[in-house]
Amino acid sequence: MSSKRSQNTRTIRYAVVGLGHIAQVAVLPAFTHAENSELAALVSDDAEKLEKLGRKYKVPGRFSYDRFEDCLEGVDAIYIALPNHLHREYTERAARRGVHVLCEKPMAVTEEDCLSMIREAEANRVKLMVAYRLHFEEANLKAIDLVQSGRLGEPRLFDSVFTMTVKEGDIRLNPRGMGGGTLYDIGIYCINAARNLFGAEPMEVVAFSANCGDERFQQCEETTSCILRFPGRERLASFTCSFGAADVSTYRVVGSKGEVVMEPAYEYADQLEQKVTIEGRTRTKTFAKRDQFAPELISFSECILNGSAAEPSGWEGLADVRIIRALYRSADTGQPVELEPFTRDDRPSLEQELRQPPVKKPELVNTEAPSE
Amino acid sequence: MSSKRSQNTRTIRYAVVGLGHIAQVAVLPAFTHAENSELAALVSDDAEKLEKLGRKYKVPGRFSYDRFEDCLEGVDAIYIALPNHLHREYTERAARRGVHVLCEKPMAVTEEDCLSMIREAEANRVKLMVAYRLHFEEANLKAIDLVQSGRLGEPRLFDSVFTMTVKEGDIRLNPRGMGGGTLYDIGIYCINAARNLFGAEPMEVVAFSANCGDERFQQCEETTSCILRFPGRERLASFTCSFGAADVSTYRVVGSKGEVVMEPAYEYADQLEQKVTIEGRTRTKTFAKRDQFAPELISFSECILNGSAAEPSGWEGLADVRIIRALYRSADTGQPVELEPFTRDDRPSLEQELRQPPVKKPELVNTEAPSE
Repeated sequence: MSSKRSQNTRTIRYAVVGLGHIAQVAVLPAFTHAENSELAALVSDDAEKLEKLGRKYKVPGRFSYDRFEDCLEGVDAIYIALPNHLHREYTERAARRGVHVLCEKPMAVTEEDCLSMIREAEANRVKLMVAYRLHFEEANLKAIDLVQSGRLGEPRLFDSVFTMTVKEGDIRLNPRGMGGGTLYDIGIYCINAARNLFGAEPMEVVAFSANCGDERFQQCEETTSCILRFPGRERLASFTCSFGAADVSTYRVVGSKGEVVMEPAYEYADQLEQKVTIEGRTRTKTFAKRDQFAPELISFSECILNGSAAEPSGWEGLADVRIIRALYRSADTGQPVELEPFTRDDRPSLEQELRQPPVKKPELVNTEAPSE
Repeated sequence: MSSKRSQNTRTIRYAVVGLGHIAQVAVLPAFTHAENSELAALVSDDAEKLEKLGRKYKVPGRFSYDRFEDCLEGVDAIYIALPNHLHREYTERAARRGVHVLCEKPMAVTEEDCLSMIREAEANRVKLMVAYRLHFEEANLKAIDLVQSGRLGEPRLFDSVFTMTVKEGDIRLNPRGMGGGTLYDIGIYCINAARNLFGAEPMEVVAFSANCGDERFQQCEETTSCILRFPGRERLASFTCSFGAADVSTYRVVGSKGEVVMEPAYEYADQLEQKVTIEGRTRTKTFAKRDQFAPELISFSECILNGSAAEPSGWEGLADVRIIRALYRSADTGQPVELEPFTRDDRPSLEQELRQPPVKKPELVNTEAPSE
């Protein structure tokens, strides 16, 4: 941790709750690069995961879910890498024991869940952060900085495609009430990007969902295409996300004078590329693969140590969940959906950027990648 | 003209009707590369255009609009490069005099216009073709061939952005009733691409329009984002087109195994680029700038000479116009719009490909490009 960030030499002790794919490939390895953060406990009902990962990462505390409260006794914070519909419950149980929460996105399944989590954290004076890894990532922050700077002229539109081929049985294919579906898992990246690139909140949305009819899409949709209308000098954001198509991860913002294209845009296991065209002249820059999870730990630990506000906050998490819900309401009813006014003052900026070396892909224990 | 195409050595004599930007930069120069087509007459109310362009291209027949019927006496066919709301009238006047019609797209402003044009051409036994230049263009036809071949797996989604900065006073900014607006001018490329890449007709559409409020967008919208639902194993196509943003011209089709990206996709004054990714391996190919208008003339003349059916036909023109109208109805009402079933058997294929060398940009006479 750089000295400018904190003089405090105490470290924050974390339990990682849920030891699925993202925990194993990204969260657990990230502690190596987060000097102010210590991996103190693991929570899982899979004894083999606890044993093998506990040994590998030299973690003393190993707990099953029925001993979650015992686990909380020995840590300052938890990183929630659970299925989406469990985020609220585990956040609130931790908060009630005075333990800080860094929660994977989507923050929760409903707006009510998000609000309840925010209230519970406030009432118990614990910090709550939602794990938007791209809020600390150089290429994405530079895109926001570029769009906000006016160098592309006035930003007029956002377009994005985020697709992958999800295997049968993956948690992402859960019913919507459990936070399954494309918008909760990958659409959230497009929504978050559009909101923060424009620095605004949408006022109206519409969506079409589609389904090829494969067995694996019995409980959630295959593909959703969305349009979001932003206020002021009206701007449109459109995006398509799918669990039934080859890997694509890209967005572009087109302004009156030029555009920025990110491709890949949203990946954590790959380098990112940014192409900027201003008045017809194009410049392409590649951003090396980095550890995008350590910065979240470093930042959250620092907030706890310094007593500063955690960003991305629960309000940022709610900002996306309410849009996801409006989009699904539109896809279900066939009607556009208007959103209540919503204000966000804190936006990600280059000040939040933190660079850490990439992690090596570890061997997986009783889990697998969502796609081939 | 290649000998395999026709043994007939007669040439078709054309009048070009309307001498605006597209006629001057693309249609008139194309006759140099269309050996079966002769530029026999020009129609305009601008005496300077008639004089200068008539001299430059050595065109004997020069007519004002009030002498349009006189002009028809001396030609076999007309190329209509008029404002969109005049396509129907001039098509029908030519048809009634037994003159064949090659009409710029959009074919007309309404479905009723299109149907009337088709009926009038049939009744008078003249051929009617809509000038979809990309139906003869290698890169776009190869994209269709690739998608239809199954090499990308099952095609799941289409996404496109087509934007430009249109100057105040340009004809594209006409009221919608005159065929102004983004969908008639550039959205039609996205619609036509999606339909022919999928080889299907959409069953339901939704659109949001947006307007920054600039003076130039008093009569038509600035930007429209659209989603089209295609039947069968449901597929979605989304696109955004704008007259208020920097130049972008791109589409992608993502299948279950890979994708094809065209960028630029729709240009006629630039080389095109196609990037194909199949199972993670990417290959990029550039297609040299070519004359995309001569192939239309060559193909249409050949149909007239051989008595074969003209494609893209009026039905192809209607197929796009009815979608444009449904999209605007959606944007106006805020409701998704269902489309009547519509069948197209003839789809563009590589058999139609025709390559001709590029034309040099000519000096413009009393006209200017739509954007800077």
